[in-house]
Amino acid sequence: MDQRISLITLGVADFERARAFYEALGWSGESPDGEVMFFQAGGMIMAIWSREKLAEDTAVTDNGGWGGITLAYNTRSPEEVDKVLAQAEAAGGTIARPGTTAVWGGYTGIFLDPDGHAWEVAHNPGWTITDDGSTLLH
Amino acid sequence: MDQRISLITLGVADFERARAFYEALGWSGESPDGEVMFFQAGGMIMAIWSREKLAEDTAVTDNGGWGGITLAYNTRSPEEVDKVLAQAEAAGGTIARPGTTAVWGGYTGIFLDPDGHAWEVAHNPGWTITDDGSTLLH
Repeated sequence: MDQRISLITLGVADFERARAFYEALGWSGESPDGEVMFFQAGGMIMAIWSREKLAEDTAVTDNGGWGGITLAYNTRSPEEVDKVLAQAEAAGGTIARPGTTAVWGGYTGIFLDPDGHAWEVAHNPGWTITDDGSTLLH
Repeated sequence: MDQRISLITLGVADFERARAFYEALGWSGESPDGEVMFFQAGGMIMAIWSREKLAEDTAVTDNGGWGGITLAYNTRSPEEVDKVLAQAEAAGGTIARPGTTAVWGGYTGIFLDPDGHAWEVAHNPGWTITDDGSTLLH
């Protein structure tokens, strides 16, 4: 198994609401059937799909709530963290933690999308964001 | 906000157990402090970290269980799906759904890592896996 992730699917309660949120962030994707939407996200894909169907397809029990996974979007500057958080709030997201200086030397905040999926928005001065948007440890 | 994800952090109950599982899959990473481990995964990063600390840092309430996110690893052939599922089981994972032909024409199964994080392993004949492991919609 190579060291990579191909696809992250976010289960959503209301497909059109979730679609509108990510589109309001400036993302665009394609939906082959009006039920799932695929967003090309750098070298991987992010999808939104019915949480009920995703739970069934993933063969898991859904108790609701946070499942121990946090997504992150790394920026090229601390100022950009605040800009993205403001953009997420304007698009209908919730700020769970405003931008603050982290103990590890970066600057980071958290927004939740309309389904409660948590995104950290972070500037890490030790990580490299390439021109094509890849995030590299060195 | 550009259309990309930088980092996915999986919250884990036992850091050493989680680390051993991903290392048994052939992944290697680096841990700056012995508490978090970063795996370069194509153009993004996957991390493992204490689920308790991740919940606190993400400013969310953790009720336990699945949180509506499924990761996927796409392969270059149907045969490779079965190989990866077997590898995950040998590494200490659980097969939630064995490889089966999907209604959309692919071949797919699900494994859970030791903390219950769900990975779909899928061959989608319509998607391209590049030489460097990126997954493209076209």
